[in-house]
Amino acid sequence: MSSIIGYYTTQFGELWDKSLFDLAREAISGVLQDCELEKNQIDAVFYGNMMAGVLENNLHGGAKIAQLLGTHVPIFRVESACASGGMAFHLAHNYILAGKAETVLVLGAEKMTDYPPEVVVQALAAAASGEEQEAGLTFAGLYALIANYYFSKYNVTEEDLAHVSVKNHFHGSLNEKAQFKNIITVQQVLKSSYVASPLKVLDSSPISDGACAVVITSNKQLLANAKNKVEILASEVATDALSLKDRAYFDRLEATSIAAKKAFEISKVKIEDINVAEVHDCFSIAEVLALEDIGFCKKGTGAKFVAGGKVTLGESSSFVVNTSGGLKAAGHPVGATGVKQIGEIFLQLTGRAQKRQVKNAHTGLAHNVGGSGGTVVVTILSNKN
Amino acid sequence: MSSIIGYYTTQFGELWDKSLFDLAREAISGVLQDCELEKNQIDAVFYGNMMAGVLENNLHGGAKIAQLLGTHVPIFRVESACASGGMAFHLAHNYILAGKAETVLVLGAEKMTDYPPEVVVQALAAAASGEEQEAGLTFAGLYALIANYYFSKYNVTEEDLAHVSVKNHFHGSLNEKAQFKNIITVQQVLKSSYVASPLKVLDSSPISDGACAVVITSNKQLLANAKNKVEILASEVATDALSLKDRAYFDRLEATSIAAKKAFEISKVKIEDINVAEVHDCFSIAEVLALEDIGFCKKGTGAKFVAGGKVTLGESSSFVVNTSGGLKAAGHPVGATGVKQIGEIFLQLTGRAQKRQVKNAHTGLAHNVGGSGGTVVVTILSNKN
Repeated sequence: MSSIIGYYTTQFGELWDKSLFDLAREAISGVLQDCELEKNQIDAVFYGNMMAGVLENNLHGGAKIAQLLGTHVPIFRVESACASGGMAFHLAHNYILAGKAETVLVLGAEKMTDYPPEVVVQALAAAASGEEQEAGLTFAGLYALIANYYFSKYNVTEEDLAHVSVKNHFHGSLNEKAQFKNIITVQQVLKSSYVASPLKVLDSSPISDGACAVVITSNKQLLANAKNKVEILASEVATDALSLKDRAYFDRLEATSIAAKKAFEISKVKIEDINVAEVHDCFSIAEVLALEDIGFCKKGTGAKFVAGGKVTLGESSSFVVNTSGGLKAAGHPVGATGVKQIGEIFLQLTGRAQKRQVKNAHTGLAHNVGGSGGTVVVTILSNKN
Repeated sequence: MSSIIGYYTTQFGELWDKSLFDLAREAISGVLQDCELEKNQIDAVFYGNMMAGVLENNLHGGAKIAQLLGTHVPIFRVESACASGGMAFHLAHNYILAGKAETVLVLGAEKMTDYPPEVVVQALAAAASGEEQEAGLTFAGLYALIANYYFSKYNVTEEDLAHVSVKNHFHGSLNEKAQFKNIITVQQVLKSSYVASPLKVLDSSPISDGACAVVITSNKQLLANAKNKVEILASEVATDALSLKDRAYFDRLEATSIAAKKAFEISKVKIEDINVAEVHDCFSIAEVLALEDIGFCKKGTGAKFVAGGKVTLGESSSFVVNTSGGLKAAGHPVGATGVKQIGEIFLQLTGRAQKRQVKNAHTGLAHNVGGSGGTVVVTILSNKN
């Protein structure tokens, strides 16, 4: 089995004085320092990035990372829209299981704020199908279609949903690397402008810059000497049709259910053992779907589950969702997000989550979604071994 | 160990009546027919594609493949410029070794000819570094810099180099799926227009559409029943700095030497055992570098090695290079090329290469390059087991 032994994240936000590879360089240097490794101890790199090709005509990023590291080791760029980071982690984990490497660095990086918003929104829509793009659908539009159907089927309101963002901004206020550290209220969410009805600005994750990296190893000596160590119990991927119209369900992301079910089976972890979860809240409705589709609560009850305060950080919390602030408050540099989610769980399970630490957290789950659910990665981590 | 049990390639060329996913659909359907499998026997898919994001704002292609297959299995899009196909194959092979799948489909697909040439050339330059792009360097320009240095160091001429394209067009004339089936002469190469001196139009691979797929399996029953079967003895990756200026050498691709050395070590194959090789001749100079850097001939002698006819198909050939026609004549749909190279070796080792069959071919090598050498994948295959 392999374990995560290091993590670093840059600040998330509008970082106009840093390029994509400035951020990548900082994340690589930071993670090597966190786990006290040298560059030449890295056997391979998996690099999650979505938009550099579309936004800045920058492909073949793996070789750019080789240049930064001064290495000849295998480096893979993986792209699955907003699940690029989680997919990079999944492949890195399996590269170790294949015996092809012992120590692998997983990098997620994205640079989104140097371009006009309409350019970025159009580029993000590249993760939707051609027919959805031709119909003028943005990502907010796709999730708004889901939200409207869900609202009418389960009698849920915009006010119910607002609690997701309120919680995540509260958590973001405790995370110094978060893009937004301001606490917000349900009234503020409800008064914010519509992006695509019923979803409003404060239901939506922002456009962000940022990079994160983790180091995974199966090397016995490194594991024995590791200051911090969290075992990878499961990493599972499922896919679904790219176009919403070709899905079996419209009130759930089936790929989440499939990946989560496999991850629980393989890890032998029970859902009630999870203390911390980072779920993919690109829009508030997406967190509600995630909580239900993973199995933390019943279909149709996710918004009230969050509104009740059960998954908000408190003195006696035993299960908290999106302690990082989620995509909503921590920010959503798309290729970095999946790595940040896993890194946040790593910080929680090694007792280093500072003001947002969940006491005695021992088992955590990360849930990363590409597009409107065409790709899902679920990772389960534990500090017990 | 795992083996390749099926291969299919579409026609390569200017296929204006087919979209990227039309080509992908044809390749998937074709390979399943070649190995007599059903869609639901595929455990995972690795998909190599370089340019769909830049050219048609089409990312998250993995989920589109899920839609075509009607599946929820893991699907990964891999991008390493013109090595995207070889890298997808490498990761697929290791996914099986990790025990995460038994039967994996590897797809490479690219759609390049629906756009004005200047748009495609600019998009291809995305595989070079930002500083090279800013300097106005195209891919032909980068390889021309290498060729000029190489010519002066080793006293090689444009005429020497011309034999590479002459050989590859001869082989292309025997391959019904090739983009160019016309035989050309050294004089025609020398009279063709300069693209970037000393490289001319007939030193350069074309802009192409096409898709290829192979199926790999470790499933004992499928292997026992396979009509055609070729074992994967080694698949090795090496990287180098993206920018030429940050490389240690300028007359060789160091990543080729590193990947080839590892592949020979791991496979225990000796270089003289290789009967067929597909090497990455995006420009004629690139085939010369490849032959030298893999170790088929000494540094500085590659052009004369080809000109002497030793690696051209003939009645008594025991070692032939680029029987498919190479990138030059078969065409170069960039994400598909790495899969086509492996597929061509598979056809040769299963005795199905028709007019271009090398008699008694038992061991083959495929060599796939990203950009100007920032990524290299070397694969060694055998039909002996």
